[in-house]
Amino acid sequence: MLYLIGLGLSYETDITVRGLETVKKCKRVYLEAYTSILMAASQTSLEEFYGREIILADRELVETGADQILKDADTEDIAFLVVGDVFGATTHTDLVIRARELGIKVEAIHNASVMNAVGACGLQLYQFGQTVSLVFFTDSWKPDSFYNKIMENRKIGLHTLLLLDIKVKEQSIENMARGRLIYEPPRYMDIATAASQLLEIEEIRNEQAYTPDTPCVAVSRLGSPTQTFKAGTLKELSQYDSGEPLHSLVMLGRQVHDLELEYLYQYVDNKEEFKKFVEKDQEFFKPPPYVPPEEDELSD
Amino acid sequence: MLYLIGLGLSYETDITVRGLETVKKCKRVYLEAYTSILMAASQTSLEEFYGREIILADRELVETGADQILKDADTEDIAFLVVGDVFGATTHTDLVIRARELGIKVEAIHNASVMNAVGACGLQLYQFGQTVSLVFFTDSWKPDSFYNKIMENRKIGLHTLLLLDIKVKEQSIENMARGRLIYEPPRYMDIATAASQLLEIEEIRNEQAYTPDTPCVAVSRLGSPTQTFKAGTLKELSQYDSGEPLHSLVMLGRQVHDLELEYLYQYVDNKEEFKKFVEKDQEFFKPPPYVPPEEDELSD
Repeated sequence: MLYLIGLGLSYETDITVRGLETVKKCKRVYLEAYTSILMAASQTSLEEFYGREIILADRELVETGADQILKDADTEDIAFLVVGDVFGATTHTDLVIRARELGIKVEAIHNASVMNAVGACGLQLYQFGQTVSLVFFTDSWKPDSFYNKIMENRKIGLHTLLLLDIKVKEQSIENMARGRLIYEPPRYMDIATAASQLLEIEEIRNEQAYTPDTPCVAVSRLGSPTQTFKAGTLKELSQYDSGEPLHSLVMLGRQVHDLELEYLYQYVDNKEEFKKFVEKDQEFFKPPPYVPPEEDELSD
Repeated sequence: MLYLIGLGLSYETDITVRGLETVKKCKRVYLEAYTSILMAASQTSLEEFYGREIILADRELVETGADQILKDADTEDIAFLVVGDVFGATTHTDLVIRARELGIKVEAIHNASVMNAVGACGLQLYQFGQTVSLVFFTDSWKPDSFYNKIMENRKIGLHTLLLLDIKVKEQSIENMARGRLIYEPPRYMDIATAASQLLEIEEIRNEQAYTPDTPCVAVSRLGSPTQTFKAGTLKELSQYDSGEPLHSLVMLGRQVHDLELEYLYQYVDNKEEFKKFVEKDQEFFKPPPYVPPEEDELSD
């Protein structure tokens, strides 16, 4: 049996009781170690907590070594641990499809992920549109597919959750070219970088999917002991020191309920000013008011 | 301290280790018992597992008795348990706001909810638009606010998660009028009812947000030992016997990736036929193909 087990967001103890019981009985335990990190735990602390050795699974192993992970899984129990919930990344779906091809049973043990825990910031989950990803820009590569998606969400009044890039075990172009297995230190996108990249693309595209005054919520270290929220405009957040990773960003849509706004006030510098920015931003993509036809037109 | 603790989807052991440790040390333990149910557990089995007595919190207590729940929470630890994750329902946000007004600290211990666990059906979470709710129709009351939202999602190609109505501790109009505290048996909307209601509204509105041939995925007892998925058209699912609750429904959007489709094939009756319905449905809301201007127009 292949068990896919979500670890939740931060602590070793964020695993479910059923997840822990399952890990303890598995023959081999893999930890997917490239799409996210567990903020308040380490490989060593997890191994101690589980009483089991952990095999770190990097992108290469997961994407090309599925058969190695699945070896003997028809007769033995194998655990594949994922930070957050198990179906966050496409690569895990691949692993399940491969397992089924091999006739190996699969069970998922779910957990919290940023996709649902983000509700902790006070914005209602059913007011969110599609989730988008923001990757680190380079001088020559500034992918902006998120821009149209944010526009689509905001046109229908919805909030957008932006997942920020994580670079783990990346090689420099030079090291890659020379075939040297030397890896760069891990990088986690912070709020200021995310906000600046968003502003950069708005300046290039200039279609006003959002503006420097669009209100957003910075979500830092969600579910960890140092969880922090900060609400402000995109411009304000481009100067914000968000501290240690991990971070996500939420861009507000037009449909902000009073209850949501009241909740956000505790994270703003200036309540009145923030409210003004929210009201100003709500004018974007607003459906035109109904104008009754004039009598002349009716008689035509 | 007020602890909001998510219980996950099904088993007693779906609580996180940290959640369980917290429940065990709390002075009073409330279980929110009207927006969802834990499928493979009962109040008794939970009390046994926690070693604590549980106070069932119905809608009335949560919405009007917040101060009763929060009594002494400035000096004692109080647990408020929620099936799924803690920020699924607006009423819980209310409770947190009230706690903060009273100067009571609040901590959330997150867990899986249908909003992220639905990824188990094989559709990618970032391809979902806004989530909608479907309530039981009566002869005179057929609320259809979901219709425009599904239309909005499908216009931009996204899948829609539909949460299906749960009626717990409801009074009949007669009993309510006579002030008799007699409650109807609980009702949980099944897939056939949901699909039929969707078709009924499409027939009334006739704006083709979807059609009887639109492909959907029935999600039954997600995360439980008897979890089942069934993919088919809306019309097919209006005849589907989905069994015991709980259920949710996903309506597909235009953006169906090959990987998603391949995953869904294991839940269909006829692969080729399902593929045809998906392709047919993708013609809805398709952006018009690019037509180069004619030479005449260019020379104008």
